This record gives sequence, C-alpha cells and structure tokens, in this order.
Amino acid sequence: MHIKLSEIESKEIIPGYQGKLVHTQNMSLAFWEVEQGAEVPEHSHKNEQVMQVLEGRFEFTLNDSTNVYVPGDIVIIAPHIPHSGKALTACKLMDVFSPTREEYK
Amino acid sequence: MHIKLSEIESKEIIPGYQGKLVHTQNMSLAFWEVEQGAEVPEHSHKNEQVMQVLEGRFEFTLNDSTNVYVPGDIVIIAPHIPHSGKALTACKLMDVFSPTREEYK
Repeated sequence: MHIKLSEIESKEIIPGYQGKLVHTQNMSLAFWEVEQGAEVPEHSHKNEQVMQVLEGRFEFTLNDSTNVYVPGDIVIIAPHIPHSGKALTACKLMDVFSPTREEYK
Repeated sequence: MHIKLSEIESKEIIPGYQGKLVHTQNMSLAFWEVEQGAEVPEHSHKNEQVMQVLEGRFEFTLNDSTNVYVPGDIVIIAPHIPHSGKALTACKLMDVFSPTREEYK
C-alpha cells in the first residue's frame, strides 16, 4: 500500500498541532507541523511512542525531566509514562506509536 | 530515553545500506543511507514495515508490483509479503518495524 504524505489531510488533534496520520495493523505514524508556543498538556497512553524532532526546538517533559530537543534527537516514551511538550519555535515532529493509536483515527 | 542520531554507529546490514538502528519494546526504527545502485534482494519477515523515502529515488517491488518512490512517499508492507528494492540514486530511507526486528540487533 502506497501513501503520499502530500495527499493526507491534516487534523488539528491538539490546538497548534496539525498532524498527518498513517495507521497500519500495529503502528501509527504522525507527522506534525506545530505552531510556535503550542503546548501538549501532560498525558499518558498505553502505546509505546518514539518521537523524532525534524525541525525546530521542542521542549519536552518526560517523567518530570525537561529537556530541549532539536533535529536528530529521538525520545523513546515507554507505555503509560506521563509526558508533555511545548514548541519553543515552529516545529516539525514525527511520532511513531505501537500499538495503533486508535483515538487518532 | 534520549538518543542522538549522530551518536548511533551505522551498520552495513546489506551491501550499500548503512543503517542507524533504534530498538524499543515493540518497534525498530532504521535510518538508512544507501549507495546509488545498491539492491535489497527479495525477502520477507513477520514484522510489519513502513518505509518512507527521505531523499533520492528508490525502486521498490512489493508483491511483484514495481514502482519508483521519492521523498514524501510512504509504503506499508504487511507481514510476510515479499519485497525488494534498488536505489536508483543515492537515497535516505527510514523504516519502522513492529514487532522489533530482532535480527538487526
């Protein structure tokens, strides 16, 4: 199955977070365009998550530890671990989840 | 857990395919730098795979159907489906697998 990212309609899942979503049997991929200053409130989920910063500077808090991530940085978020974030600049991020993130469908 | 892509040592898993690998509980991510002309022979595996072309032109055959993919193209490869590929130019590719690709560890 072939998908063009340019043909996926973005969804504003959280204010300031426009995501293009790809769901497979066991995974969800999310390609985000994030407005400067947009925040993800603390949350957690059963899905394992891998976040990659593609562009910009993203402040991210995992288990009460806050760091600023830049392109080339990857963060692994184990299931059920609380996390939150804030775009210090406009950002592009990619998340991969397993299992599929059903509530993003 | 935080990883910098620049600090991951590449492994030449297939001739001409230098991969930086990130393994989590349920997923493996592979960031490939591929030499022009390098081929992946037909193979299959139990892991679901999502391939994204980041740079270059990549010829990919899935289930006897051959197409050329470019940046922005994503291909979903269901478990056990035979596939092969050839870099028509130098390429950067990203693969995500679930479950973890144990033989890449």
